[in-house]
Amino acid sequence: MKFIRFAVNSTVSTGVLTDKGIREIKGNLFGDWEYTDHSFSLNEVKLLAPLEPNQIIGIGANYVSNVEDLPSELPEIPVFFFKPTSSVIGPEEEIVIPTGIDQVKFESELAIVIGKEAKNVPESEVLDYVFGYTVGNDVTAPQFFHQDGHWTIGKSFDTFTPLGPVIETELDPFNVKVEAKLNDSEKQNSATELMIIPIRRMISYLTSVMTLKPGDVILTGSPVGAELVSAGDVIECEIKEIGTLRNTFVTARKSVKSH
Amino acid sequence: MKFIRFAVNSTVSTGVLTDKGIREIKGNLFGDWEYTDHSFSLNEVKLLAPLEPNQIIGIGANYVSNVEDLPSELPEIPVFFFKPTSSVIGPEEEIVIPTGIDQVKFESELAIVIGKEAKNVPESEVLDYVFGYTVGNDVTAPQFFHQDGHWTIGKSFDTFTPLGPVIETELDPFNVKVEAKLNDSEKQNSATELMIIPIRRMISYLTSVMTLKPGDVILTGSPVGAELVSAGDVIECEIKEIGTLRNTFVTARKSVKSH
Repeated sequence: MKFIRFAVNSTVSTGVLTDKGIREIKGNLFGDWEYTDHSFSLNEVKLLAPLEPNQIIGIGANYVSNVEDLPSELPEIPVFFFKPTSSVIGPEEEIVIPTGIDQVKFESELAIVIGKEAKNVPESEVLDYVFGYTVGNDVTAPQFFHQDGHWTIGKSFDTFTPLGPVIETELDPFNVKVEAKLNDSEKQNSATELMIIPIRRMISYLTSVMTLKPGDVILTGSPVGAELVSAGDVIECEIKEIGTLRNTFVTARKSVKSH
Repeated sequence: MKFIRFAVNSTVSTGVLTDKGIREIKGNLFGDWEYTDHSFSLNEVKLLAPLEPNQIIGIGANYVSNVEDLPSELPEIPVFFFKPTSSVIGPEEEIVIPTGIDQVKFESELAIVIGKEAKNVPESEVLDYVFGYTVGNDVTAPQFFHQDGHWTIGKSFDTFTPLGPVIETELDPFNVKVEAKLNDSEKQNSATELMIIPIRRMISYLTSVMTLKPGDVILTGSPVGAELVSAGDVIECEIKEIGTLRNTFVTARKSVKSH
């Protein structure tokens, strides 16, 4: 099942996407929901990020180039980081390159959406706590990494976490490829079997530390091939079974004070 | 005005704390709220963390010992980090030392509660976006810091962010001391003028990166004197004008799988 969030005029709704169009739903995506009487066709709505995440957790440098390069022993403490929920945008929205720099990196990723509260869950059971999967772009400005290794600021700018287009609940996450096309040219294309910390271990480890909650999003790392890009570039992050997340990079407009 | 969250039996409420007791309120703490007809005395309620934060942002190593040690030039990129909202507990709740280690660090801090959406706000205006202040304990397990400098896991365990007892909206944050007593013995006691990145600059910088939202909590750093502590130790983090946040450290009980 494919869930989307969308706007018609300024009304935001959630719906199920089928071959025949969109059927609006109401209720709790992670609990009880039901169909409303409203249907829409895709071309009359604006797609939004498919959820407003509760939190966003990323993992660093998690892919190798070839299966032979997978380490025999996994790192004891994986590199995790948080991204602020204020950085989320949807398909077709603009990614803003921060003032003072000319380039940022795209990173196409499989994004896991947690559906149930999870604490101390063994690897064999973690998939029971997954609601579905979407595509994420973990946009990054390495120029803002702190010299002592803290990535927070370089990952936190507004617009730095495109998500979408849909949450696919029926995906087999072990049998997909994470792709990226920059201006129509392929830059990333790796099977998820090239993850260093595999999905089950990643989620299980996180639940040994913290209680994961419905709406938490885990960005599972980006394949080799991510690059620095500039204003005007168009990035398409894609997992064929989920869809294509397309965004354009722009320069920051002059700062306008918020009131 | 002092805002609190509290439970009576299993009902959670928000209220205003006065000399005469608690007056319950309803509505949006950061918008329109009104008093209900219910009043309570402090001894008939269980205090909770005074808010459920939208996000928690911390700043690293932000105090010097003496005013003369303040650097003439501020770091270009401050060390910020996020803590998960799942790590929040309230006054008198237990801080759980994770399985596999014997000690964790307490860090008493002034915590800022954002009340209005804030983006690109100059230093001179940032306090208009602050709702109030509480006391935070940025509990930390440095044993889980990644060797490349990532603090995420060491800051993220459940129970690692005690907050409370109240949100004080009338505080002068430049004229308070941040204190900590470990088993009744003073360990931290510094005026906020010893912050390396001062409050106005900290918030203004953050708004140059990300849109701060109502309910965001900023932990402003801990004075010198934080220590490793063990199960059985009692920590009291205090800012006299706000109150005392008291918690006891305990060892992790055997993991129980969540269902």
